[in-house]
Amino acid sequence: MIGGRGFSGLCSTHNSPVMTLQRSVGPVTPQAMHFSEPLPLQSGASLMDYSLTYETYGTLNAQRSNAVLVCHALNASHHVAGTYAGQARSEGWWDNLVGPGKPLDTNRFFVIGINNPGSCFGSTGPMHLNPATGRPYGADFPVVTVEDWVDAQERLITRLGIEQLAAVVGGSLGGMQALAWTLRHPKRLRHCVAIATAPNLSAQNIAFNEVARRAIITDPDFHGGHFYAHGVVPKRGLRVARMIGHITYLSDDSMEAKFGRRVQGEGAAADAQGLAQAVADYAYSTQEVEFQIESYLRYQGDKFSEYFDANTYLLITRALDYFDPARAHGGDLSRAFAHARDVRFLMVSFTTDWRFSPARSREIVKALVDNRIEVSYAEIDAPHGHDAFLLDDPRYHGVLRATFDGMLKEGPRV
Amino acid sequence: MIGGRGFSGLCSTHNSPVMTLQRSVGPVTPQAMHFSEPLPLQSGASLMDYSLTYETYGTLNAQRSNAVLVCHALNASHHVAGTYAGQARSEGWWDNLVGPGKPLDTNRFFVIGINNPGSCFGSTGPMHLNPATGRPYGADFPVVTVEDWVDAQERLITRLGIEQLAAVVGGSLGGMQALAWTLRHPKRLRHCVAIATAPNLSAQNIAFNEVARRAIITDPDFHGGHFYAHGVVPKRGLRVARMIGHITYLSDDSMEAKFGRRVQGEGAAADAQGLAQAVADYAYSTQEVEFQIESYLRYQGDKFSEYFDANTYLLITRALDYFDPARAHGGDLSRAFAHARDVRFLMVSFTTDWRFSPARSREIVKALVDNRIEVSYAEIDAPHGHDAFLLDDPRYHGVLRATFDGMLKEGPRV
Repeated sequence: MIGGRGFSGLCSTHNSPVMTLQRSVGPVTPQAMHFSEPLPLQSGASLMDYSLTYETYGTLNAQRSNAVLVCHALNASHHVAGTYAGQARSEGWWDNLVGPGKPLDTNRFFVIGINNPGSCFGSTGPMHLNPATGRPYGADFPVVTVEDWVDAQERLITRLGIEQLAAVVGGSLGGMQALAWTLRHPKRLRHCVAIATAPNLSAQNIAFNEVARRAIITDPDFHGGHFYAHGVVPKRGLRVARMIGHITYLSDDSMEAKFGRRVQGEGAAADAQGLAQAVADYAYSTQEVEFQIESYLRYQGDKFSEYFDANTYLLITRALDYFDPARAHGGDLSRAFAHARDVRFLMVSFTTDWRFSPARSREIVKALVDNRIEVSYAEIDAPHGHDAFLLDDPRYHGVLRATFDGMLKEGPRV
Repeated sequence: MIGGRGFSGLCSTHNSPVMTLQRSVGPVTPQAMHFSEPLPLQSGASLMDYSLTYETYGTLNAQRSNAVLVCHALNASHHVAGTYAGQARSEGWWDNLVGPGKPLDTNRFFVIGINNPGSCFGSTGPMHLNPATGRPYGADFPVVTVEDWVDAQERLITRLGIEQLAAVVGGSLGGMQALAWTLRHPKRLRHCVAIATAPNLSAQNIAFNEVARRAIITDPDFHGGHFYAHGVVPKRGLRVARMIGHITYLSDDSMEAKFGRRVQGEGAAADAQGLAQAVADYAYSTQEVEFQIESYLRYQGDKFSEYFDANTYLLITRALDYFDPARAHGGDLSRAFAHARDVRFLMVSFTTDWRFSPARSREIVKALVDNRIEVSYAEIDAPHGHDAFLLDDPRYHGVLRATFDGMLKEGPRV
């Protein structure tokens, strides 16, 4: 079945009088798993002697049938839900979705988050030692693709003793990984939940990635990707990259609603005194902050440049660029999905997402329907742009809750 | 009257059997005009002892009633039409519109192009000497606004002996200048032709400008805007700024059509041998060019960084940010246009322009209609995004030709 905009049918489940107590999964601890067997990569290279950092929430049932893998996007990690003991504001990036009583209910599902290789949150990445040289990989870290990540995840899942995942779930780049699971390991999952994603990047998507990469690579502190040895970080480039990213994550409308043309200092006075908003004078400066949107973007850029690795940024944007399952099939996306026939799909998109618009999700839905694959599609009327996949819009979460609830009624597929 | 999409009524004039011989205006020579009287600016500062570079095409008639001012946008100049003797590829930026027999016909109109102060193509700008210090202005060049430019243009027009312009014409930032003429000097023009423009920048528009500015300002070669003394140019920042700009000038669709996901080397072989396009292998690189769109953006960035001034980039993007005629009227755009009652307007927008979308032009049309001001509105169904205003789409040029032709039938307004 293919749902329409708003998806009111399923959403009504959310408004039912049944109340669910939602809690956080509480303090969690990341774990590491080491792999000594090389991981063959799409590029022809291999990743040697690597480890993956991961977290799990909930309990694997006796049939090992209730495991759900959550795949992360660009700047997220294995830390999907819960908090770290003694660390304020350490909630996982999808804590509003994953937890006891939440739409992806850890009272019933065993949820796994894995940091992808090449990332900078624990799994082997560019800042780790290259066994071939004894120095940090830096720019020599092999190029990794969505397919490579999925293969790495599959090895970890196997080691956990899970033959078949109830579902693989992800938004944006995470959604691409969920899709790639159905193409590379179709027998290893029953459901694919791919949110705010696309069958490949458009020229415009690649263009934004490329500008961000150029900002990083041309930062004099990048040193060709070997900046660790120089004791510097290409923060200027990372800041600009993050600012560009942020513009594409928000809808034009939500940016307008949140910031509009308000200049620094405007708005606060009005809130405090209950007055109609006063118009502040322009400061007439080309280099200082004038508008509130500028202050917001600078803050986001500064924060990001403090914790994110520049080589990881290049690697992950390239993984986005390279993802294109139709490419090996002469551009025919329907042929790409021909082997995913036993997987059941939920696709979700958001009306104001201009990075990965609903039209891109519909391309995937069409390819699935061409193969007579079971797919539900929810196009959620939400104002928040691409970022909507991280927010807890009740209609969106209602669709996910209903989908996960439905999985519990099934046994493992043979 | 307000026209609908496509504007087929007016466009039929273009398809009539009457053929017009179109020529270039031929070799032209820029001129300079010096102003010793300070120009008071919106910021409260003044521009001292400045000169403006300009060009004219055609002949001012005896009644001095056939003058049309063309206002330039971010990276253009006074060089609107014609070529420079001995310089290949030196056509003016709107040469397809302005010339003998062209829609803005220099056999009948006297056309004026003026380089705005703060720009870097001849008129006084940041690289010129600051009379107060004897050193280049650099970052000390006063912040200039659309209104300041219009006042500077008005002085030059007056010196040319022109009491009333037949029209002021501009696209994008040039369109904002055309609009500002009707607000500041409504008796000095009969027609305003404002194309692909907006009544102000949205938060998203400002955000893109801010990222570009941050790329420039944080380039170590910027030196706080006083890089001239260091013998360097912040080319890294200028490149990134231009790449961002280019993404916003093109529509998603036109970028897709022009580049798609083609990698370097793809396409050429197919063209030469007439074969279906071969799919080249990925090179799997994070730092080298992989996709053709990347190569295009890098080329545009490199070219721009060779000729454009970094301080000018900051000044002009700030002029864009600051333009907001409704601001002085409590956000009421209709009140802003109350004094423009005697001007006749043509507004043109392009369906795929996401930088200044048709909705932004319609805001202006509504404000004019609220004031019972005569306005024609053409929303042209064109695939090229914001850049469409520089191209010679026949329906678009048909609308302009009909509008200019109509002006010749009028006398000066008293």
